[in-house]
Amino acid sequence: MTDIEKMSAAARAAGRALALTDTKTKNDALLLMADRILKNKDRIKEANAKDMLFAREKGISGAMLKRLELTDGKMAQMAEGIRQIASLQDPVGEVIKGYKRPNGLEVRKIRVPLGVIGIVYESRPNVTADVAALCLKSGNACIMRGGSEAINSNLAIAEMIVSACREAGIPEGSVNIVRTTDRAAVLEILKQKQYIDCIIPRGGKGLIRFCIENSDVPVIEHGDGNCHTYVDRSADPARAEKLVFNAKVQNPSVCNATECLLVHKDIAPSFLPKTAGRLADAGVELRGCEKTVRLLPNIKKASPDDWATEYNDLILSVKIVEDLGEAVEHIGKYGSGHSESIIADSASAIAYFQSACDASAVFVNCSTRFNDGFELGMGAEMGISTQKLHARGPMGLSEMTTSKYIVTGNGQCRE
Amino acid sequence: MTDIEKMSAAARAAGRALALTDTKTKNDALLLMADRILKNKDRIKEANAKDMLFAREKGISGAMLKRLELTDGKMAQMAEGIRQIASLQDPVGEVIKGYKRPNGLEVRKIRVPLGVIGIVYESRPNVTADVAALCLKSGNACIMRGGSEAINSNLAIAEMIVSACREAGIPEGSVNIVRTTDRAAVLEILKQKQYIDCIIPRGGKGLIRFCIENSDVPVIEHGDGNCHTYVDRSADPARAEKLVFNAKVQNPSVCNATECLLVHKDIAPSFLPKTAGRLADAGVELRGCEKTVRLLPNIKKASPDDWATEYNDLILSVKIVEDLGEAVEHIGKYGSGHSESIIADSASAIAYFQSACDASAVFVNCSTRFNDGFELGMGAEMGISTQKLHARGPMGLSEMTTSKYIVTGNGQCRE
Repeated sequence: MTDIEKMSAAARAAGRALALTDTKTKNDALLLMADRILKNKDRIKEANAKDMLFAREKGISGAMLKRLELTDGKMAQMAEGIRQIASLQDPVGEVIKGYKRPNGLEVRKIRVPLGVIGIVYESRPNVTADVAALCLKSGNACIMRGGSEAINSNLAIAEMIVSACREAGIPEGSVNIVRTTDRAAVLEILKQKQYIDCIIPRGGKGLIRFCIENSDVPVIEHGDGNCHTYVDRSADPARAEKLVFNAKVQNPSVCNATECLLVHKDIAPSFLPKTAGRLADAGVELRGCEKTVRLLPNIKKASPDDWATEYNDLILSVKIVEDLGEAVEHIGKYGSGHSESIIADSASAIAYFQSACDASAVFVNCSTRFNDGFELGMGAEMGISTQKLHARGPMGLSEMTTSKYIVTGNGQCRE
Repeated sequence: MTDIEKMSAAARAAGRALALTDTKTKNDALLLMADRILKNKDRIKEANAKDMLFAREKGISGAMLKRLELTDGKMAQMAEGIRQIASLQDPVGEVIKGYKRPNGLEVRKIRVPLGVIGIVYESRPNVTADVAALCLKSGNACIMRGGSEAINSNLAIAEMIVSACREAGIPEGSVNIVRTTDRAAVLEILKQKQYIDCIIPRGGKGLIRFCIENSDVPVIEHGDGNCHTYVDRSADPARAEKLVFNAKVQNPSVCNATECLLVHKDIAPSFLPKTAGRLADAGVELRGCEKTVRLLPNIKKASPDDWATEYNDLILSVKIVEDLGEAVEHIGKYGSGHSESIIADSASAIAYFQSACDASAVFVNCSTRFNDGFELGMGAEMGISTQKLHARGPMGLSEMTTSKYIVTGNGQCRE
């Protein structure tokens, strides 16, 4: 047995015990985790300083360095996030449905933990705390494998988490961190079908593709967000301007920010110039289709690649469409199934857009930025799933469980 | 583009149109399918005769030949099954949950089709009709790839289905059958991640493993049923005898039949000899642990392999356990997570067994044979999922859908 295999087998056993652990014990462990992280923040910062030094030596850029750095503020946030997870309802044991069959059998479908979750992630060390807390609360053992760039920070955080779990009486082996950071370790995790129930990759496209192509364990994909906002001819132009601005500018680096603006040709002349001006003032670079460029001669022309690009930046592609049908078709061709929004007052346009857009969430007269676990009311999230199986949209604690039928009879036989 | 790629791309487009098709049109198509199959049963039987001839030439055995053969009775059943699916409620459009956020956003989580389902199956040609009907009703386009042994039968049935769909106005390309039957075609289907949302293999272990190891598309696994019945010391012996007999003998060839009987040592002397006699009279071969063999000297001793074997036959392994804990441990070690049953009157024994057994369904004082879509009240099923993601237990129409959030506002921006 290799180390990863041993760790996985132990996690399977721990997961079975953790599934039977009561909510209070899990919450106690979470609150203890938060305390430990704050009390030991200097030790964590020391470990983080090593990672930062190594990253600078490797010539890693500003944005990535910033994600890697653990400031006092970030550690306070980390602890606060764990406390919030402690305050959420335990999904385990929820009766999803229950009914009685004609032969008297009582059927209940109840929520139970998945078992063992493998998380393969990159860069941000606070993911270690988030993931461990979400898995613990949902009764799942976890195996975490972070990237080499954050290994010292990850190990320091994991040490606090593991010791808090031990003190609170969480089954030994419930929270695991892999110490080796090469791809071979990832590959081995992906083959532990016997012991691991689900793999969640959190990171760049390369990592996600590697997991999908190599895993025997089911993968929950948190993919791209090439999100659109469509402004219909029936839209209120002032509302549309406000919503497009929010969807692009409020936080351009995240997956639910709008990357492409689609505008009905009838409203374009009255709507686009003013909105474009406001966006440009906020530093947004616009890249337009031919018709858009005719209307806004100062902007850059979009290349065919632009329609398929998730910028994660202050860039917005703009296309004027003949009608709603063309907008929906464009989204069907280029969208990543994440978040699509329509700004309109026509009930029939709204109804068609809602049904015809194949995405995890469709927004009507509001910003795509609301595709988020906190905003949709499920509390903390593991990420936003862009696949269709098991979890679609924000993946909260409920989505980290599976179900089990409990069927109770008094001697019923099948005839 | 290869043929499979073209078919998959067309199915993606058809799936989008099918998602918007109303229930009446889908039901009309289903009823028409059933009629066509019955009206053309002689043509289907001719095609089936070719498959049977080829199978006999290849020296295929009795049980497999029987599964391959399409009798008038089987075709009547096929048509009746399709009509039943027409009578079930359409899962598409169901509001799974709905609520209002403090900022006024109205959130609804609704059921929508998965999109395109790929089904890779073996042997039984009636699967073609079942699968096409279930996919159509749940609004999914399908790509079916059956085995070479049933290709003529499959194509004849598919012809009826496709022509019925065309006449009823179902979008062209919604139901597809792959004409080539080599593994290369399967492999190609497994790589169409862009167009296919989910793969369901139905067949032997080899086929399922091939799909899991090679697919980039998520796979829903319908695995083994190594099911246990545990008779607790608190059980009523007469009830236990009746239930064990039913779980083993009523239909031994199916996945929810019990393969291993676990008996508490305190009840074994009074319970086992009588039950063993009745099972032996019904032609069941018993294979016991050492203690069992001491109690029932005429039976065969179980080898370590027996505990891990799904017989699908009139064979039952028997183990006497020290206590409930040993029973649960044995199930944890050898069970396939399908169906586990406890016969007991002790509430604490029942409660522990229910929580500690990690299976798609746990039965209390009733037969494992109830793990079935019809018996649990969801109507027709695609199979019984033994994995934990997306669908666990009987996979009915609801499990063939995904969800979409519809979020309606009146100008809300993220702050």
